[in-house]
Amino acid sequence: MTSAKAFDDFYSVIPAGGIGSRLWPLSRADAPKFLHDLTGSGQTLLRDTWDRLAPLSGPDRIMVVTGRAHRAAVEEQLPELSDPNVVLESEPKESSAAIGLAAAILHRRDPDVIMGSFAADHVIRDQRGFRRAVGEGVAAARAGYIATIGITPTEPAVGFGYIHCGAPVAIDGAPNAVLAESFVEKPNLATAERYLADGNHLWNGGMFIARAEVLLAQLGESQPKLLEGLTELAEAWDTPRRGAVVDKVWPRLTKIAIDYSVAEPAAAQGRLVVIPGDFDWDDVGDFASIAKLHSGGRKSDLAILGVNARVLADSSTGVVVSQSDRLISLIGVTDIVVVDTPDALLVTTTAHAQRVKAVVDALKVSGSNDVL
Amino acid sequence: MTSAKAFDDFYSVIPAGGIGSRLWPLSRADAPKFLHDLTGSGQTLLRDTWDRLAPLSGPDRIMVVTGRAHRAAVEEQLPELSDPNVVLESEPKESSAAIGLAAAILHRRDPDVIMGSFAADHVIRDQRGFRRAVGEGVAAARAGYIATIGITPTEPAVGFGYIHCGAPVAIDGAPNAVLAESFVEKPNLATAERYLADGNHLWNGGMFIARAEVLLAQLGESQPKLLEGLTELAEAWDTPRRGAVVDKVWPRLTKIAIDYSVAEPAAAQGRLVVIPGDFDWDDVGDFASIAKLHSGGRKSDLAILGVNARVLADSSTGVVVSQSDRLISLIGVTDIVVVDTPDALLVTTTAHAQRVKAVVDALKVSGSNDVL
Repeated sequence: MTSAKAFDDFYSVIPAGGIGSRLWPLSRADAPKFLHDLTGSGQTLLRDTWDRLAPLSGPDRIMVVTGRAHRAAVEEQLPELSDPNVVLESEPKESSAAIGLAAAILHRRDPDVIMGSFAADHVIRDQRGFRRAVGEGVAAARAGYIATIGITPTEPAVGFGYIHCGAPVAIDGAPNAVLAESFVEKPNLATAERYLADGNHLWNGGMFIARAEVLLAQLGESQPKLLEGLTELAEAWDTPRRGAVVDKVWPRLTKIAIDYSVAEPAAAQGRLVVIPGDFDWDDVGDFASIAKLHSGGRKSDLAILGVNARVLADSSTGVVVSQSDRLISLIGVTDIVVVDTPDALLVTTTAHAQRVKAVVDALKVSGSNDVL
Repeated sequence: MTSAKAFDDFYSVIPAGGIGSRLWPLSRADAPKFLHDLTGSGQTLLRDTWDRLAPLSGPDRIMVVTGRAHRAAVEEQLPELSDPNVVLESEPKESSAAIGLAAAILHRRDPDVIMGSFAADHVIRDQRGFRRAVGEGVAAARAGYIATIGITPTEPAVGFGYIHCGAPVAIDGAPNAVLAESFVEKPNLATAERYLADGNHLWNGGMFIARAEVLLAQLGESQPKLLEGLTELAEAWDTPRRGAVVDKVWPRLTKIAIDYSVAEPAAAQGRLVVIPGDFDWDDVGDFASIAKLHSGGRKSDLAILGVNARVLADSSTGVVVSQSDRLISLIGVTDIVVVDTPDALLVTTTAHAQRVKAVVDALKVSGSNDVL
């Protein structure tokens, strides 16, 4: 089957793995962030991601890497997803293994394939701006680079990582590409303000585009054992030996984020280019982010999520997430976060939204697995 | 049956009527404030009230006036309550009718009876101080006065009414009795601070002690029609005609608070004395009051009510009321009020606790009777 698509030889990969602990109790082990509608679009973030990628690679060229436990939910969200495009992890092994395995399988099927990896749970609304940036990324990948898309900051965000941009690179079809000097972790506010002012730092959107061959070679330089395991898996993948090899190899794979195994080393070696993306982007990392997404930046708003939400609010701002049909009444609470689920309730403020993860950790320690 | 009791000829009356709208969604039409344990005593406020009064009048001399809908719940709480001591209102008619009917019935059964009326949903822990004040009140009632107990203020409360004290009165057995000059409504903070400083104002605890005959005569002066109706009811009460007369008379009774029909006129005529009560007292009017009761005045505390409460709190203060077995997680919210019931959730702050009533009013207007 051939479908309409923007880029030849291009394959989209969606790693759909993270639970999104900062969005507890909405996000759970059995209901991770990508399976929720956090934007009010009426569909899940995963489905939004699919709809964004299908016009670029064609719907028959989107691979999803997810946990075994999420297979049914993912297939329900993506009925067009064909069996060869489903990669199931028997246990989470972080992004290098997830994206690397996709690269190894795709490379084995087509040695010339260019792949782009895009998180299952980010929000991008400007499809045209996204497509333009991916187009430049594909051009850079054809030229042998690993490309990432960096988002032009609109505020001094402290919740995102940044990419420090270097000199322009001359690449056919990628007029805006610059070298990535380095990656920087989430900064403090003063540093973030400096980044915003200097115009030389972009948000790290976690999107990577490269020839699978190039990506694997880069991974192999820093993580040869991991590459070896992924290659063994890929060789067996489309054969009857898959199950046996997965059982043997998967548990031993090194857990490491692709930022450390691929992006930072590639940047240090001048092999990573950044395509500045001028489109809107958010990783919806916490409830403060959800409140912001829904308020359009207005501080006076109360965002309400939940198809059956029944909320009575007086002089209150922030965000309410309702997964029940209970009446939720707010009086005089500002920047509040209320997340009402059948078995757990969270009350905090947008200023403390990042601390939700600590609560999840505390619940783990205390053995409260029933609500995780 | 004769039981141990402190005062002869004394009858306790407990009007158990108010829902306690400021305690919504805990308090409901079918679960009013007096049927809740708000103190952590392990029993309802009504039962606490009974236990406080039984040693004073004897358990066979406590009359409860309540709505028909609450009969079963009241009798479950008070198994000792005998049938002649249950007065059921077919619809709420405010305190003059409730207390006045009790007075009329008791007076018909015993023309010399002294009665004391005590709310079903107030908190008093100092039984000895309470008993001493009631004792002086009974003495003042024997001398022909209407007595009320005024609580010595411990802070400039703006949520209570006050009694302005006048000159001492010489009454045998009531050495602390003073004339009540006037009643004042809930003051603003500046006025409350002045009241606290001048030492001449007491909180209006809503407790009245008088000979039933005196109370009825006072009521008749300001509300002759109401007295007429109550007298007609009392004459029929212990006869087979009760039902027919209730159906005829009760719907027409004037709705008026006893403060206006009895207390203020009596004060103006020098017939009302105040017994200063040095015991602890709270009307538990809102969630701020509950938070204070449980914290012992410490601002750093989080009060948790609910036998199955499951709360995980980080850097949070205020009060959580749980009527579910859901996990409630709080992060960085101060002076918060979270009330979690099966069908309604309230999130506010102690500073806004008085505004809960407005929400209840809004729910009434919008027809949300399912949660009222």
